[in-house]
Amino acid sequence: MSEMMKGFAMLKIGEVGWIEKEIPECGPLDAIVRPLAIAICTSDIHTVYEGAIGDRHNMILGHEGCAEVVKVGSLVKDFKPGDRVLVPAITPDWNSLEAQAGYSMHSGGMLAGWKFSNFKDGVFSEYFHVNDADGNLALIPDGMSVEEACILSDMVPTGFHAVELADVQFGDTVLCIGIGAVGLMSVAGANLRGASRIICVGTRPVCVEAAKGYGATDFISYKDGSIEEQVMEMTKGKGVDRVCIAGGTVQTFESAIKSLKPGGKVGSVNYLGAGEYVTIPRVEWGCGMGHKQIMSGLMPGGRLRMEKLSSLVASGRLDVRPECTHVFHGWEHTEEALLLMKDKPKDLIKPIVVID
Amino acid sequence: MSEMMKGFAMLKIGEVGWIEKEIPECGPLDAIVRPLAIAICTSDIHTVYEGAIGDRHNMILGHEGCAEVVKVGSLVKDFKPGDRVLVPAITPDWNSLEAQAGYSMHSGGMLAGWKFSNFKDGVFSEYFHVNDADGNLALIPDGMSVEEACILSDMVPTGFHAVELADVQFGDTVLCIGIGAVGLMSVAGANLRGASRIICVGTRPVCVEAAKGYGATDFISYKDGSIEEQVMEMTKGKGVDRVCIAGGTVQTFESAIKSLKPGGKVGSVNYLGAGEYVTIPRVEWGCGMGHKQIMSGLMPGGRLRMEKLSSLVASGRLDVRPECTHVFHGWEHTEEALLLMKDKPKDLIKPIVVID
Amino acid sequence: MSEMMKGFAMLKIGEVGWIEKEIPECGPLDAIVRPLAIAICTSDIHTVYEGAIGDRHNMILGHEGCAEVVKVGSLVKDFKPGDRVLVPAITPDWNSLEAQAGYSMHSGGMLAGWKFSNFKDGVFSEYFHVNDADGNLALIPDGMSVEEACILSDMVPTGFHAVELADVQFGDTVLCIGIGAVGLMSVAGANLRGASRIICVGTRPVCVEAAKGYGATDFISYKDGSIEEQVMEMTKGKGVDRVCIAGGTVQTFESAIKSLKPGGKVGSVNYLGAGEYVTIPRVEWGCGMGHKQIMSGLMPGGRLRMEKLSSLVASGRLDVRPECTHVFHGWEHTEEALLLMKDKPKDLIKPIVVID
Amino acid sequence: MSEMMKGFAMLKIGEVGWIEKEIPECGPLDAIVRPLAIAICTSDIHTVYEGAIGDRHNMILGHEGCAEVVKVGSLVKDFKPGDRVLVPAITPDWNSLEAQAGYSMHSGGMLAGWKFSNFKDGVFSEYFHVNDADGNLALIPDGMSVEEACILSDMVPTGFHAVELADVQFGDTVLCIGIGAVGLMSVAGANLRGASRIICVGTRPVCVEAAKGYGATDFISYKDGSIEEQVMEMTKGKGVDRVCIAGGTVQTFESAIKSLKPGGKVGSVNYLGAGEYVTIPRVEWGCGMGHKQIMSGLMPGGRLRMEKLSSLVASGRLDVRPECTHVFHGWEHTEEALLLMKDKPKDLIKPIVVID
Repeated sequence: MSEMMKGFAMLKIGEVGWIEKEIPECGPLDAIVRPLAIAICTSDIHTVYEGAIGDRHNMILGHEGCAEVVKVGSLVKDFKPGDRVLVPAITPDWNSLEAQAGYSMHSGGMLAGWKFSNFKDGVFSEYFHVNDADGNLALIPDGMSVEEACILSDMVPTGFHAVELADVQFGDTVLCIGIGAVGLMSVAGANLRGASRIICVGTRPVCVEAAKGYGATDFISYKDGSIEEQVMEMTKGKGVDRVCIAGGTVQTFESAIKSLKPGGKVGSVNYLGAGEYVTIPRVEWGCGMGHKQIMSGLMPGGRLRMEKLSSLVASGRLDVRPECTHVFHGWEHTEEALLLMKDKPKDLIKPIVVID
Repeated sequence: MSEMMKGFAMLKIGEVGWIEKEIPECGPLDAIVRPLAIAICTSDIHTVYEGAIGDRHNMILGHEGCAEVVKVGSLVKDFKPGDRVLVPAITPDWNSLEAQAGYSMHSGGMLAGWKFSNFKDGVFSEYFHVNDADGNLALIPDGMSVEEACILSDMVPTGFHAVELADVQFGDTVLCIGIGAVGLMSVAGANLRGASRIICVGTRPVCVEAAKGYGATDFISYKDGSIEEQVMEMTKGKGVDRVCIAGGTVQTFESAIKSLKPGGKVGSVNYLGAGEYVTIPRVEWGCGMGHKQIMSGLMPGGRLRMEKLSSLVASGRLDVRPECTHVFHGWEHTEEALLLMKDKPKDLIKPIVVID
Repeated sequence: MSEMMKGFAMLKIGEVGWIEKEIPECGPLDAIVRPLAIAICTSDIHTVYEGAIGDRHNMILGHEGCAEVVKVGSLVKDFKPGDRVLVPAITPDWNSLEAQAGYSMHSGGMLAGWKFSNFKDGVFSEYFHVNDADGNLALIPDGMSVEEACILSDMVPTGFHAVELADVQFGDTVLCIGIGAVGLMSVAGANLRGASRIICVGTRPVCVEAAKGYGATDFISYKDGSIEEQVMEMTKGKGVDRVCIAGGTVQTFESAIKSLKPGGKVGSVNYLGAGEYVTIPRVEWGCGMGHKQIMSGLMPGGRLRMEKLSSLVASGRLDVRPECTHVFHGWEHTEEALLLMKDKPKDLIKPIVVID
Repeated sequence: MSEMMKGFAMLKIGEVGWIEKEIPECGPLDAIVRPLAIAICTSDIHTVYEGAIGDRHNMILGHEGCAEVVKVGSLVKDFKPGDRVLVPAITPDWNSLEAQAGYSMHSGGMLAGWKFSNFKDGVFSEYFHVNDADGNLALIPDGMSVEEACILSDMVPTGFHAVELADVQFGDTVLCIGIGAVGLMSVAGANLRGASRIICVGTRPVCVEAAKGYGATDFISYKDGSIEEQVMEMTKGKGVDRVCIAGGTVQTFESAIKSLKPGGKVGSVNYLGAGEYVTIPRVEWGCGMGHKQIMSGLMPGGRLRMEKLSSLVASGRLDVRPECTHVFHGWEHTEEALLLMKDKPKDLIKPIVVID
């Protein structure tokens, strides 16, 4: 393994390109891995073109991918070079106070479990570094493709987290706002959790088609009026039991609250990139007394979650292949894949680059 | 028992007075009771002088009190005339779908478990009606005064609900915003739930003194800067584990979120009377991903809650007497008591009128 | 409606037959209904032939069925004669302290939410009585057959309750002990709740076939050795995350505990008819410190649960038709259906009698 | 720091004495500490004199104590030599799958978070080894004595865990079986969690006196008949809401279940040293359908728990000094302290040896 590696980086806001860096060092608990495949996330676009996390220079991009282990630290017990591994986008410090409190994704500070392409170089690179290999990697199950493995980095654990936060129960009517790559996984998760009716907000045909396959029963378009009016009509004025938010803006919560029954719950995993305030409508929130709970959060990462969720794919309970609409082969397609995500053509859900 | 009764009513917005009405009818599940004591709530003031629930004409006021049973319906099994009873401010319909879902306070619609002086006449009356007597009344424990029993109508179950919503755990640092009659019970509840540090926002000396007795460890004044700045200084930049809100406005949530750790919870029982939106600060809410959960709700009512909470008072675990700062004797003092609550003199926490 | 009705009754232990009784009275909250279809439950067999609930004389049998409303009490708001309704086997008193505590099935005493053919006449009768009609009935959804509606009385809500008690999570490996009519619904429930692997204990071919359709992935036979040995082999010594018990005896918990991971949960809905003690193996229970939680309970009844669970059937998420293996037409087949359940022929899951 | 150290060890079953061993090595995540004080636990007695964990040779005893840090590994961030630290009896591996699942005490296998004097040498030694120093140590709060700090190793976190497992709620009636050093902390915990009535089973005067101080309201003696009969009489046949078990045998669960309401919960932290089965009485367990939940488990360890629980002591909410009945000064009293625990004189709760 050479001393230097190439990585596809954000050079500065609005500019990307290949750079050379030293291969990261491997601490006693860590692993150095090389990608088998990577996937582009909308937040890569936000990072580069909107400066969502601030200005960064020569930071290697990417937080979605799967990999082969190249090197492990002296204290790593469960992984060895050659292992093919799932890599979660969120890689917590498991002995932190936050993890001990059940919020590993905030280990070391709010959102600080998100390290790739945020606090350190990301995964669009010949090699990348994984902290706490035993705590954060998981073996790719036999028979799983590297494309599927990429979807398990972020789309599945994030989309499913909305369902966990919203605490979907048997027979619930669930409103899913946003049916992009993450939102589709919220639909799939709500379905796998026993919802009987799943109302989706979204109109892109490729997503609508995928959502139907994942269990969506009804669709709403922004163009046909407000979400809440359509929901109330569809539910005979009762509203929904749960709302999963995987898209929209700070204003989306207004529709969510207005669509919800008293005692209902909102689960949001949407990154809110702009706006000073999230606005909760006072009256429909029961003047602060309506028991419409608002839960939101970064997805939990780590090995156990990877093992659990990948077992759903491996057992055939969850088919993530409809997400993989655009698959490239070879590092040279990385920029093309990124720009595809930026342009979002009609038939795109997720661009993936398979390395070998 | 005569056919007619006198009641102290809201004549219209801004105007109160005694009126005569027929004694309510007693359905098969119901009870007719006569007050032993009543208490004035801030929301009575909002109702009358701010028109908080809209214009009402000749609606008898009041939702806090304790009573003696005068008459019970044919299906009532556990109460009989002469029983001295606790009456919760919230009297749900227990077979409703909302109650079956665990949200009895919203039985029949959001907030609709609140019936007294809202959907029907209140308790400031020679007689008043209680729906579902078996499900909503509870015997006053031996040795409990009628003043204490009044505090159990609303102040204890509401203040404690903030603590339940915020899910206070052993050793938590809790911020209590608002230390009026309800907020003091949040302080007491946080203490009884195992908080190790309770930081209070409030400055009225009578309330500060009472809060200390209930377990408050630190105090913050609005006058010394923002709540969040003071909290962060007090907690060395860590923030608090939990926030209980029992006062303030739609803007109070901003301070709450800013004062909270990732993974923390807000429990609010504050009635928000004005403002179009409750404003949640986007950045400090982790851009929607900080796991700062927002729970709010009307207090649960009903018999079991009355029995459980009154057992804390009866056993000496909770002393509600410091709340009872102003006690009058006789119906004729009702208006005086109401005006006292409106004027809020320095030494007031709660005005109570003992009937006999 | 005539004054007298015919019902199929337990005359005494071991003896059944048709008797005449007066049509029950309808209290203000109640309904009198006539069955559209009824189903036989294994516990009817236990009641009659094993005296499981003690000796009873001329008690009309049955607790599973669906019906048409014939009469409603004066306080019933949501149902009227002619309505076609789901009837849960468990019909709680919703204003009881137990229901307020979240355990409606124990309203009035342990298990006392179970009234049909226990504390009062059952449903194998021209007419039967339903307490608290608004709280306990639910409309049969459009397009649902009466056979399907029967399965919603007890099999679905009981089988699913094991899954709720065991708290099945995304990606869990679940052991289902018992795949009779209830156990199959535990399999379906575990699947609908996101289990990735469902290991079933049971060998009857008709049940094995149905279980596969409901999501079972592996099967264990008692004949091939102990459950726990087979589970440990299948899971490479790790054990399962959850166990659902819907069959077996007081000794079944021994296998359940031995098959479970530390931190795992057992959810049991099995009626334990004999034996002085349920035996928990000390060592495998971690010497009392292994966090292997043991939850068990009678299914929750009531209207909300009926509405929620029937929505799964109505929406096509859950197909209960494979349970309905033997369907008769006409009251005259009631005894035949009962004896079929007693004899349990090879191809039987559930005998149902459609009345009209 | 010399190469060799002295430790007080179990030489073999039934025999103890001082031995010499090498000072343990300090891995990159670990700390080597020297005790400031140690405490004897009943389980030390079980280990030595009953062979509870099997035969061990020259294993240094003890899992309760507080210490000064002598050395830290290269990856330790938050502690340094000279720090005075709380040391939990349970020191999990925080990146394990079990910890990620919320059961850190079973990291690496059931009960395997318990390392001291079980899988490695204990704390009765000039120096001892702590795995994952950042995840498991906590600073001793200012003003806390070393005796108090010892009680935080095991008695507080174990006793409180029974309360957590039993999920005590405001106004609950709680039965505490066992009022030794652990059980007293269950009493204190139930009180701090809002119980209104705490019925204790135990008769030793020194413990009864301490229990009263911790909030006990009623006492039961084994000598006056069965626990369940006395409980039922005290509660007018209703039973208790919760049971905490911190003493007794495998048969104790029988009394617990018989004393409990339907929907009640048992939380047990008692180490069950003998007996093949824990026996659950079938009928009083509702024939397996009474919703009497049985939770049991080893206490959670780790830094966050130490910080949270020590804050209760530091803030004056919890006074652990009544536990410290016998305090010795100097290593030379270790055997005397151990024998005292073995003999359990009338006035003993906990023997502590202060080192300097």
